[in-house]
Amino acid sequence: MNFKVIFRNVSFLLFLLSLSFLLPAFYSLWERDGLFMDYLYPIILSFSIFLVGIQFENEEPDIKEAILTVVLVWFLFPALSAFFYVKTGAIPNPFDAYFESVSGFTTTGASILTNVEALPKSVLLWRSTTHWIGGIGFVVFSLSLLPAIGAGGAQLMRFEASKAMEEKVLPRVKEVARAILVVYLALTLSEIALLKLAGMSLYEAVNHTFATVATGGFSTKNASVGAFHSFAVEMIIAVFMLLGATNLSLYYRAFRKRSFKEFFGYYEVKSLLTITVFATIFSTVILLLDHVYHNPVTAFRYAFFQIATAVSTTGFSSTDYTNWPPAILALIMILSLIGACAGSTAGGIKQFRFLVMLKTIYQELKKTAHPRLVYKITLGDKSLDFTIINTIWAFISIYFMLTVMFGFIITLSGYDLVTSFSASIACITSLGPGLAKVGPAGNFSFFPWFDKFLLSVEMILGRLEVLTVMTIFLPFFWEK
Amino acid sequence: MNFKVIFRNVSFLLFLLSLSFLLPAFYSLWERDGLFMDYLYPIILSFSIFLVGIQFENEEPDIKEAILTVVLVWFLFPALSAFFYVKTGAIPNPFDAYFESVSGFTTTGASILTNVEALPKSVLLWRSTTHWIGGIGFVVFSLSLLPAIGAGGAQLMRFEASKAMEEKVLPRVKEVARAILVVYLALTLSEIALLKLAGMSLYEAVNHTFATVATGGFSTKNASVGAFHSFAVEMIIAVFMLLGATNLSLYYRAFRKRSFKEFFGYYEVKSLLTITVFATIFSTVILLLDHVYHNPVTAFRYAFFQIATAVSTTGFSSTDYTNWPPAILALIMILSLIGACAGSTAGGIKQFRFLVMLKTIYQELKKTAHPRLVYKITLGDKSLDFTIINTIWAFISIYFMLTVMFGFIITLSGYDLVTSFSASIACITSLGPGLAKVGPAGNFSFFPWFDKFLLSVEMILGRLEVLTVMTIFLPFFWEK
Ligand SMILES: [K+]
Ligand SMILES: [K+]
Repeated sequence: MNFKVIFRNVSFLLFLLSLSFLLPAFYSLWERDGLFMDYLYPIILSFSIFLVGIQFENEEPDIKEAILTVVLVWFLFPALSAFFYVKTGAIPNPFDAYFESVSGFTTTGASILTNVEALPKSVLLWRSTTHWIGGIGFVVFSLSLLPAIGAGGAQLMRFEASKAMEEKVLPRVKEVARAILVVYLALTLSEIALLKLAGMSLYEAVNHTFATVATGGFSTKNASVGAFHSFAVEMIIAVFMLLGATNLSLYYRAFRKRSFKEFFGYYEVKSLLTITVFATIFSTVILLLDHVYHNPVTAFRYAFFQIATAVSTTGFSSTDYTNWPPAILALIMILSLIGACAGSTAGGIKQFRFLVMLKTIYQELKKTAHPRLVYKITLGDKSLDFTIINTIWAFISIYFMLTVMFGFIITLSGYDLVTSFSASIACITSLGPGLAKVGPAGNFSFFPWFDKFLLSVEMILGRLEVLTVMTIFLPFFWEK
Repeated sequence: MNFKVIFRNVSFLLFLLSLSFLLPAFYSLWERDGLFMDYLYPIILSFSIFLVGIQFENEEPDIKEAILTVVLVWFLFPALSAFFYVKTGAIPNPFDAYFESVSGFTTTGASILTNVEALPKSVLLWRSTTHWIGGIGFVVFSLSLLPAIGAGGAQLMRFEASKAMEEKVLPRVKEVARAILVVYLALTLSEIALLKLAGMSLYEAVNHTFATVATGGFSTKNASVGAFHSFAVEMIIAVFMLLGATNLSLYYRAFRKRSFKEFFGYYEVKSLLTITVFATIFSTVILLLDHVYHNPVTAFRYAFFQIATAVSTTGFSSTDYTNWPPAILALIMILSLIGACAGSTAGGIKQFRFLVMLKTIYQELKKTAHPRLVYKITLGDKSLDFTIINTIWAFISIYFMLTVMFGFIITLSGYDLVTSFSASIACITSLGPGLAKVGPAGNFSFFPWFDKFLLSVEMILGRLEVLTVMTIFLPFFWEK
C-alpha cells in the first residue's frame, strides 16, 4: 500500500471537488450576503493540502489504493463541507453539519434542518450543489472503478461503458467521464429551462434541478416540491427524477446510434418503467379507494410523483404523505430498496441485481421439481456465470444485513421500529426521508449525535455499494 | 403425473395422521366431556377416502409426485382438523378453524382464539397434538424428501442423515423416521417428567411438552407459560425449546458414537448456542439498563426465555413483552428469521443457510480487494460448490421476498406496518406471535377472512421451505 500515492490522489480530488464552492461563492457575491470569503476557505484549505500531496510522485494506483482513495474522498469531502457549514454558523453542530454534507454528497437528501427556509440562499445553493457534484462523482465511480473491482456484479456495467466507446480499442475512464458529463449537463440545462418555463425563478430552478438529476432530494422549501403548488413543476421533476435514475452511458450510446430502441429496449430501463407504471396505477387506485383523493387526476398527480421519487431514490415530496394508507408507505420503502438503474445517480440494490435475483429464483423453482436441471442466467445479450451471480447475491444479502443492523442500532436509542428501520432504509438506499418520525413532514434532527454519525456512515456505505467500504475493514485488505 | 398414486399416498397419509385424534378422543372419554364421537368422525372420514385410495396400484412416486403429495397433505390435514373444530363448535368459523389448524400442524402457534381457557380440555389437547404430529412430520419430511429434492441446499442434510446410518449401504427413509421417532419420544417423555416434577399437572405437562418439542407455542393458558409463575417451568421449557430446535438426527448420531463432541461440535449447534448466549446477555443488559427489571436474575429469567423462544421459533411467552424496548422486539423478529437447525422442528431460514451466507459475504469482501480471488466455502467437513450456494441464496431471497410480499398484502387491509410485517414474519418462520396487534398479548382474530387464509397459506409455504410449494405453481411443473 503506497500511502503517498493515496495522499496525492485524495488531496487532488478534494481540491478538484472544492472548486464547486465557486458556484455559491459567486452567487453570494451577487446576493451580497457577505459570505463570499467563507466559500473560499474550503478551497484554500484543500489547495494547501494538495500542495503537500503534489510533492509525491505520481504513480498508477493499484486496486486497493484506488478503493482507499475513493472511500477517503467520500468520507473527507463532506468533512470539508461540514467545516464550511460550521464556520458560517449555518449549521453550528459539527455532527449535524457532517450529516447534512454526507447526505448532500451521497445524494441522499435526508436533512437535520428543521427550517430550511431560514438559511441564506447561497448556503442552500451550496447544499444543492453537493448533490450535483456527488451525483456525477458517483456515476463516474460506478462506471469506472466499480466495474474494474467487479464488486456486486458491477463488471456487467463495464461492458456497457465499453460499448459506448466501441470504436476505441482501449476506452479510458476519462472518456467515460467526459461523455457522462455531457449527458449530465444536457439533463441539467434542459430541466432548468423547463422549470423556468413552468414559472419557477432561476434560483429555485437551479436548486431543484441539481437535486433532481442527482436524485438527491434537498429542496429550498420546507414543504419540498409541494411548496410550488404546480402540476407542471411536479411532472417535470417527476420525469427528470426518472431520467436521472437511468444509466447515463445509455443516453450517450442511444444518441450515437440515433436509436430510441437502444434506450428503451435496455433491460434496466424496461424493468424500471414497468415497475413505475404498475406502482403508479396501484397507488392511484389505493388513494381513490381509501378516499384520500376523490379526483382521479389528483390521485394520479400525487401517486406518480411519489412513486417516481421512490424508484429513483430521490426523496422529494409533493405533499405530506405521512397519513397515506400503509400499503403505499410500505411500497415506497420497497421500491427504494430495489432502486433504479446501475450507472445512474440513484441508489438501492439496482434493477439489474433485482432482475438477476428474480431470474435465479425462477430457475431454482424449476430446479426444485427437476433436481438435475442445469440452467443459465442471461441479462440482455450477456450470459452470467455463477461467479457473477454469487457476487450479486453477496451484495444483496450484505445490503439487507447492513440495513437491518443499522436499523437495529437505531432502535437501541429507543426509537420505534418504523422510525428506526425506515431511517436505515432511507440512508442506505440514499432515498432520504423515511417514515414516522423521519417521514416527509419530519427530519433527522432529533437523533443523538452518535446515531447521526452512524447514519452518515451508512449513507456512504450505501453510496459506495457497500462492499467497497467494508473490504477496508478486513485485516485481509491490509495484508501484503 | 400419476394422480392415482398421489391420491393413494395422500389418502393413506391423511388416514395415518388422523389416528392422532385417538389421543384427545380417549382423554375426552376419561373427562366425560361428551366429545368422544366428534374425534372419531375425522378418522372415519379419512378412512373412507383411504378405502377409495387403496384401490389404486401402489407405485413408487417420482419427485414431482412426491412434492405434490406432501403439499396436498400439508394443505388437507388442517382441513380435516378444521372440520373437527367447526363440527364441535369449538371454532365455528371455517377460516378461523383452518387458520388454527394450519398454525398447529405447521408448529407456528399463532392463534385466532381470544380466550383459550374457554375451550374444552380435550379440544386443547387436540390443538397441542397438531403441533406434536406436525413437528415430527416436518422433521421426517426435511430429512428424507427435502434432501432428495435438494431445495434450498437441503442436500447438505442428506449427508447428515446417511452418516447416522453409515453402517447401512442404502439408508432408507423409514429408518431415518424410526430413529427420529425414538429421539422425539425421548425428548417428549423427558420434558413431561421434568414439568411434572416442577409441579405441573400431567395434563398441562403433556400439552406444553407437545408445544415445546415441536417448537409450536400453543398454550392452554391465555398468559402462555407466564401463567404458571414458575422459574423452574420456564427454564425447563426454555431448554427443551432449544433441544427441539436442534437437528434430531444429530442426537441419534451422538448417541451411537457416545460422543458429546459429535453433538456440541456440530456447526449448526455451535452457531445456535453462540447466538442464544449473546442475544440473552444483550437482552438482559438492555432490560436492566431500561429499568424494565431491576434484579439481574429476573432480567435474565425473562430475557433467556424470550430469546430461546425466538431462536427456536416456538413463540411461547413468559411475560407480556409488548412494551419491552424496541431493540429487543426487533431482535426477536431477526432471530426468528434466522431460525434454528435444519432437521429440527424449528422454522426460519436455518442456521446452515445463514452460515453459508456469512461465509460467502466474507469471501466476497476479500474478493473486492482482490478481484481475481477464487474461494471455496466449507461447512463442517463439506465443501460446497457454487450450485449449492446458488440454491441457498435463491432460497433466502425468495424467503425474504415472500415475507415482504405477504406483509405488504396485509397492509392493504389498512393495518399498521409493524403489525402487518411482524405477522408475516411470524407466519413464514412459524414463530407464531408477532408485534403490535399480533404481539404476545394480542392474537390473529381481528384479521378479515382473506387475510387469515393468506396467512394460513404463508405458514404452509414457510413450513415446506417455500420452494417445494412454489414450484407447483409454475407451468413448468405440469409439463411432461
Ligand atoms: K435521495
Ligand atoms: K412456533
